Amino acid sequence: MSNLIRYGVTKRWSDAVVVGGLGYFVEVPDHPEGSPRDQIEEIFRQVEARLQQIGSDLTQLVQVLVYLPFPEDLPLFNELWDAWIPMGHAPCRACTHPQLAAPGYRVELVITAAI
Amino acid sequence: MSNLIRYGVTKRWSDAVVVGGLGYFVEVPDHPEGSPRDQIEEIFRQVEARLQQIGSDLTQLVQVLVYLPFPEDLPLFNELWDAWIPMGHAPCRACTHPQLAAPGYRVELVITAAI
Amino acid sequence: MSNLIRYGVTKRWSDAVVVGGLGYFVEVPDHPEGSPRDQIEEIFRQVEARLQQIGSDLTQLVQVLVYLPFPEDLPLFNELWDAWIPMGHAPCRACTHPQLAAPGYRVELVITAAI
Repeated sequence: MSNLIRYGVTKRWSDAVVVGGLGYFVEVPDHPEGSPRDQIEEIFRQVEARLQQIGSDLTQLVQVLVYLPFPEDLPLFNELWDAWIPMGHAPCRACTHPQLAAPGYRVELVITAAI
Repeated sequence: MSNLIRYGVTKRWSDAVVVGGLGYFVEVPDHPEGSPRDQIEEIFRQVEARLQQIGSDLTQLVQVLVYLPFPEDLPLFNELWDAWIPMGHAPCRACTHPQLAAPGYRVELVITAAI
Repeated sequence: MSNLIRYGVTKRWSDAVVVGGLGYFVEVPDHPEGSPRDQIEEIFRQVEARLQQIGSDLTQLVQVLVYLPFPEDLPLFNELWDAWIPMGHAPCRACTHPQLAAPGYRVELVITAAI
């Protein structure tokens, strides 16, 4: 069988799954009551912590699907993103504006990273 | 070249593609005329059959993108999902509410699974 | 560490990332002022050029997420797609209609391909 490692498994989801040298995870901000800026800064901290947990780091992002349900948040998101991504290590990225499962969230990230 | 295996190839898509120890597939319910519950239960059966076809099983889900075009279906989806996923084997999961290509469908799943 | 290769790296994103025998990339048309047909034909040419750049080709598509913000473009997209994909090599594919980050774009593709 595959060497599949799960982190933070609940009935509904795992915080991260690692297999074949890649880590897969999805983040929403822990505090959806925060301002857009608070939520974006918080989710970036969560991504860094998750990467560290699975033995990776911010230079190893492969692909990020950015879900921003409020299109007006995009300029702020890009400003904070550009300052956050280490120069020379940007992932491929798709940004769309779908409605998210929980109404308060301003951002959700679907991430693939190398280990 | 890569060892890429395709299942159920048509002009437009393959039912599944396996490469590098992972299987990739997308499901919509075979019967979009069913109730939300019927469609969710059907798509879960289809996922299990697809996993079996590609030499995997329900303990090997890595990542699932859940598309639920009708937000009001989420509580039912979660109830059925929680009962369906084998304890200790939940994938990472992102759920959004985009409009799907075919109007009748209540659910679409984009799946990555280990073989 | 992983053998991660980035193509076309900017502050914000990479044109493509290759790791573990797979290439990941996202395309939008270079000319969003074109007609839907122009944009779809252009993005297909861009995908072929990107595949060539990373050492792959159109027979190696694994998964494609199709974002079509204008649902009325789907029949045209499918007609051009069916003529474009080499017979026997279709990827798995999910098509949704989310709002894209830039208003003029008629299509965005999130692609995983084998090398």
